[in-house]
Amino acid sequence: MPTPSNLGFDPSGILLDRRLGLSQQLYQQLRTRMLAGQIGRGTRLPASRDLAQVLGISRNSVVRAYEQLYAEGFIHSRVGAGTFVDLPENLSTKLSTGFATPLSTRLSTNRAETTGDTVSPVWTNSALDRLKNNHLPLPRSGPPKAFRVGIHAFDLFPFDIWSKLQAAFWRKPDLGQLGYGEAEGDPRLRELIAAYLRSSRGLSCSAEQIVITTGAQQAIGLCAQLLLEPGDSVAVENPGYRAAGHAFANAGARLRGVAVDNDGLVCSELEQITDCRIAYVTPAHQYPTGVTMSLARRLQLLAWAQRCQGWVIEDDYDGEYRYNGAPLAPLAALDRQGRVIYVGTFGKVAFPALRLGYLVLPQPLVEPFRRRRAVAVRSSEVGTQAVMAEFIAQGHFQRHIRRMRRAALSRRDALLEHWPMDIPGCAAMPRVDAGLHVKIDVDSHVREAQLVQLAAEVDVELNPLSDYWLAATPSAPAPGSGLVLGFAAVDERAIEQAAKRLQRAWQSGL
Amino acid sequence: MPTPSNLGFDPSGILLDRRLGLSQQLYQQLRTRMLAGQIGRGTRLPASRDLAQVLGISRNSVVRAYEQLYAEGFIHSRVGAGTFVDLPENLSTKLSTGFATPLSTRLSTNRAETTGDTVSPVWTNSALDRLKNNHLPLPRSGPPKAFRVGIHAFDLFPFDIWSKLQAAFWRKPDLGQLGYGEAEGDPRLRELIAAYLRSSRGLSCSAEQIVITTGAQQAIGLCAQLLLEPGDSVAVENPGYRAAGHAFANAGARLRGVAVDNDGLVCSELEQITDCRIAYVTPAHQYPTGVTMSLARRLQLLAWAQRCQGWVIEDDYDGEYRYNGAPLAPLAALDRQGRVIYVGTFGKVAFPALRLGYLVLPQPLVEPFRRRRAVAVRSSEVGTQAVMAEFIAQGHFQRHIRRMRRAALSRRDALLEHWPMDIPGCAAMPRVDAGLHVKIDVDSHVREAQLVQLAAEVDVELNPLSDYWLAATPSAPAPGSGLVLGFAAVDERAIEQAAKRLQRAWQSGL
Repeated sequence: MPTPSNLGFDPSGILLDRRLGLSQQLYQQLRTRMLAGQIGRGTRLPASRDLAQVLGISRNSVVRAYEQLYAEGFIHSRVGAGTFVDLPENLSTKLSTGFATPLSTRLSTNRAETTGDTVSPVWTNSALDRLKNNHLPLPRSGPPKAFRVGIHAFDLFPFDIWSKLQAAFWRKPDLGQLGYGEAEGDPRLRELIAAYLRSSRGLSCSAEQIVITTGAQQAIGLCAQLLLEPGDSVAVENPGYRAAGHAFANAGARLRGVAVDNDGLVCSELEQITDCRIAYVTPAHQYPTGVTMSLARRLQLLAWAQRCQGWVIEDDYDGEYRYNGAPLAPLAALDRQGRVIYVGTFGKVAFPALRLGYLVLPQPLVEPFRRRRAVAVRSSEVGTQAVMAEFIAQGHFQRHIRRMRRAALSRRDALLEHWPMDIPGCAAMPRVDAGLHVKIDVDSHVREAQLVQLAAEVDVELNPLSDYWLAATPSAPAPGSGLVLGFAAVDERAIEQAAKRLQRAWQSGL
Repeated sequence: MPTPSNLGFDPSGILLDRRLGLSQQLYQQLRTRMLAGQIGRGTRLPASRDLAQVLGISRNSVVRAYEQLYAEGFIHSRVGAGTFVDLPENLSTKLSTGFATPLSTRLSTNRAETTGDTVSPVWTNSALDRLKNNHLPLPRSGPPKAFRVGIHAFDLFPFDIWSKLQAAFWRKPDLGQLGYGEAEGDPRLRELIAAYLRSSRGLSCSAEQIVITTGAQQAIGLCAQLLLEPGDSVAVENPGYRAAGHAFANAGARLRGVAVDNDGLVCSELEQITDCRIAYVTPAHQYPTGVTMSLARRLQLLAWAQRCQGWVIEDDYDGEYRYNGAPLAPLAALDRQGRVIYVGTFGKVAFPALRLGYLVLPQPLVEPFRRRRAVAVRSSEVGTQAVMAEFIAQGHFQRHIRRMRRAALSRRDALLEHWPMDIPGCAAMPRVDAGLHVKIDVDSHVREAQLVQLAAEVDVELNPLSDYWLAATPSAPAPGSGLVLGFAAVDERAIEQAAKRLQRAWQSGL
């Protein structure tokens, strides 16, 4: 009977948990010992029968463990001689025996900064550097609450219909659709989007011009990757949508903030930036000020793009929401020279986690965007696109837009009715004719911080306007202060309650 | 009664289709005329009642059209005077009246080149230039056929289960999950992937190290965007997976092809590239040659990465498919220094159009990748992730892997049994112990092209090995020729039939 002493190596310490796969455990423990040098090169392994007996497991388990070690090149057998450890020479110089740094516990936001810094000494480059000052905040967790920005009434989405359409698609999908798909997206969905834009948004375009994206963010990201050289200037609204700025900055852009007044982007400022050929704008409802770009400014912006052969990226993130009459025609509808890249999203009508958006591109850009997207992600998941196409084709989408508009309007009215009046240093609530959020001016940054802090203490989310400005430059005017709040995230009762909590908190706290 | 002459502008030519929305049509036609200068600045528009009468439509339709024009800034009204066209001055100099180039018809692949070139004269930059020689071929359309590469037996996927899980998820989703999600992916799915890798793949990792991606392509693309400076060298296997090379090249990398022999990547060649710190490899089953990287080479590669503080990107695209014993442990399982970035995908077990993959990252890279992915796409669609998590948690995933392995094995056997023998210039079918495809050597490029062409004529897809080489450099050896074929895309009967068609075509055609 074999004993440990005649096995050629010492199996003591090999502990197997009989509830789990024995061959896998044995394989891993032998492998670890070989890599650590505890079982050296050339060591003769015991016959499988002998090792099985010592360990009290079946011979089969040992054979399978040996087979795996053999397949991975750890051992070999010589006819008539036995099985030997076959590690490459000088293993120890090749492979440090140190272990990977223990995983640190996840510490929400703080962790971000700490980990970011630990990378630097070992490996840094301009891409990692850019991320340091150009990344998105962590998404707010938990269900929607008052007055979260960027969220509409998606609690009213017809999930029953979506669920049925999903089930129907997957029950018997067309196998031809399940391989590698087209980078520009599902052809039927693209046709339906083009038809929707033509009939409901006054934007004359064809399915050929449409490229489906993983939400508006990928659309903006593709613009950044394709239209920029590192170091190029990109004009962004200031204050503006920082996530777009981050996409440009990560592609190496130099961000140039352009002021926004009551007519929208101040184009005369843009015209003075001589080395800039790309402008990112939100003309329907400027984010975050809520200003609608005037016709004169729209024409001025298009003329600028035409003159410099530049591109205007129009982000129509909440263009469906207009409470007096139909939605405004997008800037792209005025464009006769193919200088406007239109960014649309389903996230503000369906729900953000759908991650479905699209670009409407001037014809010469279609093929480059299609190609770039293929290199980036190949294509989008098939089911979401097919189900959205069916959702539109059956008329649910148009019905849902109307439902969302009514809901947002009613929630806006609840906000206007219950919003605290006469808060010191806080301007009156302005008219709200469009969109899902409103900006209220506040007369100092100190007051802004106070109002936001007191709100947070009674579980009400308000965004400080300060967060929407680019990092200050010496020549720029001091950024204005204010509150940005979304009014569509929760229902009327929750809005009323939140407004009352705010009123009490501000009255007692200021 | 008003007649056209006293309306202030000529309404003739305004044709409305009574089956469609009248106000929308009237708005668009007035708008077009204003922008084209046919209705000039300052023109007084007729009272809504009068215009309604002339056009034979309701006054309400005219009022709505006017309201839309007013909202968009095309007209204004003066009390007691009427409604006037309010276009900005010098409209014609601001806005060219030319029309966008007519849309060209889509002409599959040829179009690509043509359109790419038309862009250049107006706007070119290094990003657009790089795309010219670094883009993916259009995906093969239609259902799987013999012997398509990169496709497994997804006809056997349990779509009934997937459909039920989708329906269940969407029937009553948690609203907290439907806002903006975490860039690194669904926490539950990440836990389940880590558990799977630990128990079935011998890769010790935690959920914290995992970042979900839109398939392997996005995983590789994120590496390219984060770890490279434009101009940096990246080592890729040659022949190799061109789509990975394109991702690096589009980020500005200089691709350095490294030869592959029977032990995998020839590390001594890699070591001679002095300015290179990133290597992309497919160690389990080299794409396309099918070679498994030996243990000695794995250790040599890790030692190289440790020495130069570089990164090894391990693409384990078909590591689940091994027909003798369990799958090999990945290279990442040998890594003690945190130099290996592991790329996994669900595309080769579920189906490619799922677009679901993941990265297992050394700890210091987790936060940069999370941030970069947030800037690129914010996050992945929620349902696909949640349903995959449930699919794994209920044990369907492990069962399906076993089913896929059996199916691939049986399809491999059908290929070995029916594959044409004694084809002039074509080597014998090699052993196939892993993966979903096989490479067969052919003795000249002329013969390779002939074999592929004759196969295409009888509706059989074969990839020429030539397609997998980097563009030749003067010093490099002449690229080898061969056939690359996938054996898992269709069932045994279709494989037999395709092999017989091939046999006849080659016997009569060569």
